[in-house]
Amino acid sequence: MDGRAGPGGTGNGGRAGAGEAGGALRGISTPARLADPGEGIGRDELALAARNHGLPLEALRYDVTPPGLHYVLVHYDVPAAEADSWTLTLGGRVREPLALDLAALRSLPSVTHRVTMECAGNGRARLAPRPVSQPWLVEAVGTADWTGVPLRTLLARAGVEPDAVEAVFTGADHGVERGVEQDYRRSLPLADASSGDPEVLVAYAMNGAPLPPQHGHPLRLVVPGWYGMAHVKWLRDITLTDTPFTGFQQAEAYRLRLSPDEPGEPVNRIAPRALMIPPGFPDFMSRTRVVEAGVVRLEGRAWSGRAPVAAVEVSTDDGASWRSASLAPPDGHPWSWRSWHTEWTATPGHHVLTARATDAEGTAQPLTQPWNRGGFANNEVQRVPVLCR
Amino acid sequence: MDGRAGPGGTGNGGRAGAGEAGGALRGISTPARLADPGEGIGRDELALAARNHGLPLEALRYDVTPPGLHYVLVHYDVPAAEADSWTLTLGGRVREPLALDLAALRSLPSVTHRVTMECAGNGRARLAPRPVSQPWLVEAVGTADWTGVPLRTLLARAGVEPDAVEAVFTGADHGVERGVEQDYRRSLPLADASSGDPEVLVAYAMNGAPLPPQHGHPLRLVVPGWYGMAHVKWLRDITLTDTPFTGFQQAEAYRLRLSPDEPGEPVNRIAPRALMIPPGFPDFMSRTRVVEAGVVRLEGRAWSGRAPVAAVEVSTDDGASWRSASLAPPDGHPWSWRSWHTEWTATPGHHVLTARATDAEGTAQPLTQPWNRGGFANNEVQRVPVLCR
Repeated sequence: MDGRAGPGGTGNGGRAGAGEAGGALRGISTPARLADPGEGIGRDELALAARNHGLPLEALRYDVTPPGLHYVLVHYDVPAAEADSWTLTLGGRVREPLALDLAALRSLPSVTHRVTMECAGNGRARLAPRPVSQPWLVEAVGTADWTGVPLRTLLARAGVEPDAVEAVFTGADHGVERGVEQDYRRSLPLADASSGDPEVLVAYAMNGAPLPPQHGHPLRLVVPGWYGMAHVKWLRDITLTDTPFTGFQQAEAYRLRLSPDEPGEPVNRIAPRALMIPPGFPDFMSRTRVVEAGVVRLEGRAWSGRAPVAAVEVSTDDGASWRSASLAPPDGHPWSWRSWHTEWTATPGHHVLTARATDAEGTAQPLTQPWNRGGFANNEVQRVPVLCR
Repeated sequence: MDGRAGPGGTGNGGRAGAGEAGGALRGISTPARLADPGEGIGRDELALAARNHGLPLEALRYDVTPPGLHYVLVHYDVPAAEADSWTLTLGGRVREPLALDLAALRSLPSVTHRVTMECAGNGRARLAPRPVSQPWLVEAVGTADWTGVPLRTLLARAGVEPDAVEAVFTGADHGVERGVEQDYRRSLPLADASSGDPEVLVAYAMNGAPLPPQHGHPLRLVVPGWYGMAHVKWLRDITLTDTPFTGFQQAEAYRLRLSPDEPGEPVNRIAPRALMIPPGFPDFMSRTRVVEAGVVRLEGRAWSGRAPVAAVEVSTDDGASWRSASLAPPDGHPWSWRSWHTEWTATPGHHVLTARATDAEGTAQPLTQPWNRGGFANNEVQRVPVLCR
């Protein structure tokens, strides 16, 4: 495969020649659709749910998520990547193109950022009608310490030409999606790519160890504050372009649309969300929780990629009334989730617990679904059914 | 919670007093059921699929599965376990009960076994009618190097009383299942528990590192050749009993039944299975594969917990004809999967690839479903749809 085809400025993100078998590919790779009313999760959605996974909510207890508990979403296959022979190229509208192996990257000054990452599709399977794709409920999130070289360091070394407007990032994962064959590819505006806060990383370590295969081994992009689609895994090329990138993952997917014909707004920064560690213990099948009557500690995490979390409120009566939770003080990790907690005096019977985050821009989580055709950025509040005995 | 209640010989595997709220628990914890014809995967099954996960099939390429790619099935919650304060007790029908912390276990002679582990429910969601539970397709498998102390070493130290017949293993995960509150608990016949081949381990390391939380940190049982339900995680107690254990996970769950009233045969050793690494590249949503015309290498893994794998056959016409694949020679890991490969000259069009393992007892994977109400041990052959262009 010609994995080194350039991203161009107007391509579809696929490789040259993809069109020749377009008809056959369209036969196995169908357009996006909405589930019919009452239609259960299908075999295709289930196959994605069986291979990708979310954070088991009790793992919200860890400040830094162990790799196997951090959510994973892989569009195509995890590539068979060898660190020893990996090369990252940086070209396009730069004065001096770079080709860096892992040793070269590791020899540069590194930084570590603690970043909460969330899939843009988190919450999709709670929507009605349901967009048919990876069927997340609320759990597609995780927090890790990512170590690598700031992208701005690499851009400064290569020398950005004055006409560059975007950086296009190409991963090694190859597949077909909605009829379009492609290497996974996304762009960032140059201002975001070269920013110092948040600082974009070309990361080679997660929680102090080499990246696991499913998290981008040996190299990935980390874009603090942005949904996961921006954090290109198995990163093999960065190309600066003088026109905005219009590839599939930028112009077709990851857009907020109410009808299929509109261009839609791009998905970018993470909307505010709070999640609760479900208290007590669960029923295996329903996941309904059981707590004893008396004082129950309610705790969890909250985050926003747009502004610091300013408040978390908790309801123990399915949103009829709310109280303020205590937010942990800032811990020096502005792009990581924050802990919150409160206490609840549980009384026998059935209850629905929920939590709602508000960020410093004043954006609060909605109590009803913010619907769009792609099922992106659905941060409707979590609901935790509890039986108190 | 009284997590130290003994397992007894006739209890339901729950703690004393579980019955008092049985009515309320039954309201949130309903009996097992079969899905209606045409009923899609429900919200409860999806919630399990989102938190548990299988092996992405391309990860069959790794001899030893990285922890975050190894399948995970957690009945209740991953407990908040602290290695520093963990104690394993060994009591019941022994001459000298033991209480061992991690340091004591680590000071004993250790062994490492490479073991392929598979969930007993693997294949459940392919059954018709579908038992409603964790909805695996084919991917609930993984292979790891487990390091720990042989259980027979601990039994010899404690001194087994002549009337002991079973060892009952209790984990720290607590929940309710089908109306029964319980710590997760399973038994082994004494002959299996004290066997030297396969040798049961009390394991504290996975692939050379401390167990990850979701794989039983800090201690778990490893029972080579048995389905995953036997490998009790977060192991905190071993009790030898003079009567067979009849707890929930032994007498209610994990039985092969055609009707709900029969006692059923117990699920124990892993039935033979081969899985193929899907060739080419995938469509995101359908997971259908795309390959180029010409010679395509087909490869994968095969295993059985009952006897060594004796043969793997491959079909490229959906089972109409079969050819023998080459099996890798024995590698000194008799309880681990074996590699196999063959070549296929792909011609343009649609194909369905499959592989079928046969073990040394002569048991071959079935081409049609081996149905039972629990959805256990469904080793019907995998089918991989491929478009060749």
